[in-house]
Amino acid sequence: MAVPTETRPGERRVALVPDVVKKLVGTGWEISVQAGAGTEAAFSDDAYEAAGATIASDAASAVSGAGLVVRVNAPSAEDAAALPQGVALLSFFGVGQSEDAVRALAAKGATVFSFDLLPRISRAQSMDALSSQATVSGYRAGLTAAEHLAKFFPMFMTAAGTVPPAKVLVMGVGVAGLQSIATARRLGAVVKAYDVRAAAKEEAESLGATFLDTGVSAEGAGGYARELTPEELDRQRVALAEEVGRSDVVITTAAVPGRKAPVLLTTAMVEGMAEGAVVVDMAADQGGNCELSESGEVVVHKGVHVVGMANPPSGMPTHASFLFARNVANVLALMGPEGSLAPDWEDEIVTGMCVLRDGKPLAPAAVELLGGSVTAAGSGSATEGAPA
Amino acid sequence: MAVPTETRPGERRVALVPDVVKKLVGTGWEISVQAGAGTEAAFSDDAYEAAGATIASDAASAVSGAGLVVRVNAPSAEDAAALPQGVALLSFFGVGQSEDAVRALAAKGATVFSFDLLPRISRAQSMDALSSQATVSGYRAGLTAAEHLAKFFPMFMTAAGTVPPAKVLVMGVGVAGLQSIATARRLGAVVKAYDVRAAAKEEAESLGATFLDTGVSAEGAGGYARELTPEELDRQRVALAEEVGRSDVVITTAAVPGRKAPVLLTTAMVEGMAEGAVVVDMAADQGGNCELSESGEVVVHKGVHVVGMANPPSGMPTHASFLFARNVANVLALMGPEGSLAPDWEDEIVTGMCVLRDGKPLAPAAVELLGGSVTAAGSGSATEGAPA
Repeated sequence: MAVPTETRPGERRVALVPDVVKKLVGTGWEISVQAGAGTEAAFSDDAYEAAGATIASDAASAVSGAGLVVRVNAPSAEDAAALPQGVALLSFFGVGQSEDAVRALAAKGATVFSFDLLPRISRAQSMDALSSQATVSGYRAGLTAAEHLAKFFPMFMTAAGTVPPAKVLVMGVGVAGLQSIATARRLGAVVKAYDVRAAAKEEAESLGATFLDTGVSAEGAGGYARELTPEELDRQRVALAEEVGRSDVVITTAAVPGRKAPVLLTTAMVEGMAEGAVVVDMAADQGGNCELSESGEVVVHKGVHVVGMANPPSGMPTHASFLFARNVANVLALMGPEGSLAPDWEDEIVTGMCVLRDGKPLAPAAVELLGGSVTAAGSGSATEGAPA
Repeated sequence: MAVPTETRPGERRVALVPDVVKKLVGTGWEISVQAGAGTEAAFSDDAYEAAGATIASDAASAVSGAGLVVRVNAPSAEDAAALPQGVALLSFFGVGQSEDAVRALAAKGATVFSFDLLPRISRAQSMDALSSQATVSGYRAGLTAAEHLAKFFPMFMTAAGTVPPAKVLVMGVGVAGLQSIATARRLGAVVKAYDVRAAAKEEAESLGATFLDTGVSAEGAGGYARELTPEELDRQRVALAEEVGRSDVVITTAAVPGRKAPVLLTTAMVEGMAEGAVVVDMAADQGGNCELSESGEVVVHKGVHVVGMANPPSGMPTHASFLFARNVANVLALMGPEGSLAPDWEDEIVTGMCVLRDGKPLAPAAVELLGGSVTAAGSGSATEGAPA
């Protein structure tokens, strides 16, 4: 198994951490880690070596002869071209964002598993890297908001006067949104939460947030959502805009992997916020939930600071890598418990995560991209129990 | 009364906020605010105007004819030279850092009150800008530590594994240190606290920190820590080194106004910390509590990130200014309740804060600087009830 240094610009995470390396070596894996792969996440080459890994001087020697390559991000087309024939790969992997890499890997007869495609079933929870990284992102978004706001989050009663708590609105109550709520609440802010899914209400409230009631319900007969009238949609927008205007901070978290993020905050809504207010957009890398966001930038628009977070989990690389590595280990407990890859192709987790199997497209997006013109698999096959 | 734009590089605070302007105008003050003075703190010229202030296009016209100038920081020598004869000034003012300004103000027969010199008596609490700004600094230091640490502060129990809480050590338990403790605790960290004053123990513990006892006490007069002897410092360092090495984060807050900050963290102690650990030095502007600190920089030394905070309260200018302005208003409630300055020179708060009275040095540091060769006061005198 090989762990190359991540090549995405600005990426500070690493796919395995020394603790997990030690555990995997104990099950029979031989692990090669590229020198410096963990440096940005504060894991030294010495620590990997002490855990039983071999340190490879560069990416080429790290992956040379590897049966499995684990990464955080999908390889670039160049990274992919440098991999051995018949290799297996496990990482986040969005087919739409990595078309050249998919082609290169198909040509190598590679088998590719993507965390983006993990089925959301309870058995797969411990493998859910989207959730573990979203936990990090949500926490970071809460901190980033507090860092950029020129006011306190908590209420302060001082001899000089009383400062009211900050008003925070979290839009999108998934894993990341819930962590943003929890972090803002920990810091003492008054938090409101909004999500189009009514089911999010209870979770948001359990963390101390008030769920935003726009006064419009889409609850229809038999529990199904009914279509809102144009007038109701307007009322909903107006209620949302009013709440945005009252907020010191708006945190938006509505990202769908591999898709452009929906716009939740228009420029007009931002212009309704007070001078000094802060927007933290966790979906800036996917085009942004706010019309004004630029990934990795703080855009100041009429006194409002719009923070477009770039790669939020990478901002906290030690624990993000720690959790990601555990997700990897849990996938391998399913697919390679004896120190080599031996997936059960009847298992819905295995088939669900699979982008390519021996170079052949399995995931719908890969089938659509490659069609029938798939290059035949190379000599090696990582999916038939060959030693790693 | 005039409120010029602050001229210290990087300063984002402003001495008065619109709410306080309105209150002071109600007591009879005429207030001139320099255009843009509040912009960085998110207070617009319109807001000052609506509160009853006049907007002056530049510093010269703001202070022209003013009986009192309020600022956050001491004026530069150039700022001071541009003030009217016989003006009164209220701001933070360290004589040792502003010797040329002191000379210029003495030559103008000015009266200077400094928040640095406010007696620490309970009657003066509501005027205590050192405390109000330290509250901001301590909160910011806690946030900054969380932002720079590549780990979570809170404990997390996730499907992928359990993350332990961060270990934070706060050195120096004054107002700022207590806020750092409170903020780190709010975020879920396990916090230890250390101070040479044994009295700090109870306060630190009341916020959920564990107090370290190294057997060295430096209880000084007036609630400030006295300077330790070199031998005491050595003993302290030895006792602390072990605890520092165990910590994910060390926050240092030991600043004595107008003096070089004591070194609490040597390079050797930092080298005893784990890779990825974080030091946040609140005293970086005073030379730093950590030998490696550079003000406004993040120095990475053998994997440890040493964050030298530059002007910490300026990082949160809206609420820092809000509290400072209330401190100003409370001083004026004592010295100028009728809309003009009429200090009672029998009051220990008035005499305690006074650096210069009608150009004559009152504070020991000013007497030392100017000696007997004080230029006679100019025509006007702000201390005899002249209208502002």
